Amino acid sequence: MAATIPSSHRDLAEATGVGVLSTVGTDGVPQSTAVWYKLEGDVIRTSLHTSRQKYRNLVAHPLATLFILDPTNPYRTLEIRADATIADDADASYFESVVHHYGQDPATFPAPSDNRVILTLTPRRVVANG
Amino acid sequence: MAATIPSSHRDLAEATGVGVLSTVGTDGVPQSTAVWYKLEGDVIRTSLHTSRQKYRNLVAHPLATLFILDPTNPYRTLEIRADATIADDADASYFESVVHHYGQDPATFPAPSDNRVILTLTPRRVVANG
Repeated sequence: MAATIPSSHRDLAEATGVGVLSTVGTDGVPQSTAVWYKLEGDVIRTSLHTSRQKYRNLVAHPLATLFILDPTNPYRTLEIRADATIADDADASYFESVVHHYGQDPATFPAPSDNRVILTLTPRRVVANG
Repeated sequence: MAATIPSSHRDLAEATGVGVLSTVGTDGVPQSTAVWYKLEGDVIRTSLHTSRQKYRNLVAHPLATLFILDPTNPYRTLEIRADATIADDADASYFESVVHHYGQDPATFPAPSDNRVILTLTPRRVVANG
């Protein structure tokens, strides 16, 4: 059963912010990276490149957590613990939609548009603080 | 063998900032929370309360990652993947030192000073970006 993001903190998920995505490596150590993200209905999506360790971690262990700090108050936070699913983005259209969402031009954006996949995070548990 | 924090990003570990500590729950899902932290030599320490899930996660699975975003540039980040060890802080003196480090008065600080432990993160792998 999916958890929902409370209205009190939905602004953090809707913002074009920098979140912290944590996955678990094969050695059991969490890996955390800064990511862009898009709230779509009740799930969070983002674009991953298949060369990245977080992609390999998610294929092996499809559980991840997105943590968002309010940039104006780091004690106001939103933690989204989630089941992770991965889908193809062969034409990079989803990648381009994320780049657009963040106000950038995909044509000039300095990240590879090949070998892209769509990560969907379906919340299992949501913890809002502050 | 411990990893070291590069001098280029040591300021982030030395700052009195808010980091993101990720542990792994018994269900395999990462848990992330906002934490204070102190760089002491080549390890990171913080104070935990034993009632918290992150404490229980660390007892069961002593691996954790601290992720620090530069508050002035969220694309400048420091990821510290670490072995976690826990020690007693029966008199709460370590807890008080962290509160002092963050410019607060332990006598009036609104967090319980009983049931405190000291978490030491010994870096295994450090990733600096930006």
